Amino acid sequence: MDILHRVGVKSSVDEVYKALATRDGLAGWWTRDTQGESRVGEVVKFRFSADGKHLGGFDMKVLELQPSQRVAWQVVDGPAEWIDTQVSFELRQDGDYSILLFKHQGWSEPAEFMHHCSTKWATFLMSLKSLVETGKGAPSPDDVRIGDWH
Amino acid sequence: MDILHRVGVKSSVDEVYKALATRDGLAGWWTRDTQGESRVGEVVKFRFSADGKHLGGFDMKVLELQPSQRVAWQVVDGPAEWIDTQVSFELRQDGDYSILLFKHQGWSEPAEFMHHCSTKWATFLMSLKSLVETGKGAPSPDDVRIGDWH
Repeated sequence: MDILHRVGVKSSVDEVYKALATRDGLAGWWTRDTQGESRVGEVVKFRFSADGKHLGGFDMKVLELQPSQRVAWQVVDGPAEWIDTQVSFELRQDGDYSILLFKHQGWSEPAEFMHHCSTKWATFLMSLKSLVETGKGAPSPDDVRIGDWH
Repeated sequence: MDILHRVGVKSSVDEVYKALATRDGLAGWWTRDTQGESRVGEVVKFRFSADGKHLGGFDMKVLELQPSQRVAWQVVDGPAEWIDTQVSFELRQDGDYSILLFKHQGWSEPAEFMHHCSTKWATFLMSLKSLVETGKGAPSPDDVRIGDWH
């Protein structure tokens, strides 16, 4: 079972790729607390917080970094439901837009947490779009709140 | 293949149910151009536009209306990929929050359009949350633009 999303970012694919493939880029739309180096084979650690409290996070092993085309990660630590799932971002230019296809693949069941993560990914991808188009994203801890699970 | 989402709305489930089960409610967060009666067996027509242009829409046959619990529709007209898919909204109260589980089930393949609809549903569910919590949603034609496909 997979979470799928698509956004169109009014920019070059190079700019979107930078937001996906570098620590500074990732810190600008997903979570400010991003640690590690975004290099194939390395692990990048994403940590989240809200109201001054730590909420945990995800460790992603970088599987692919194809400039301006594709970024893929494997989840190596985090919530049980996320372990060994894969996250990928595919890019292509289409006129004024960079088309971003997002996939979070390999969920073992459609639990309530998967529903939550699907919606939350959408708001983070809108944060990425905003970062690239306007210079300002909404990374954790300033992320959009979608409910009681933050 | 299914699109899944979860939002928590700070309100009673009765208020969220109203936004899902009545024409006025639906017009407040999905599209202002909502026609027909929301009654089991009837068809509700949702039409979308942007920049003064009609973008088409969806005709939904109402399958279930369980007060404060569940609303379900079957798509009877619209884009080919949507025909015969089912959309459902499940509600439950959890403390201060109404938990809404959303499912759009029965997609035949994970086409790019499904990715787009997944993200777009998320932004519309955030519009629903905003409508119920603040009185103001972002229905079409004032909906959040997520890319070149609107």
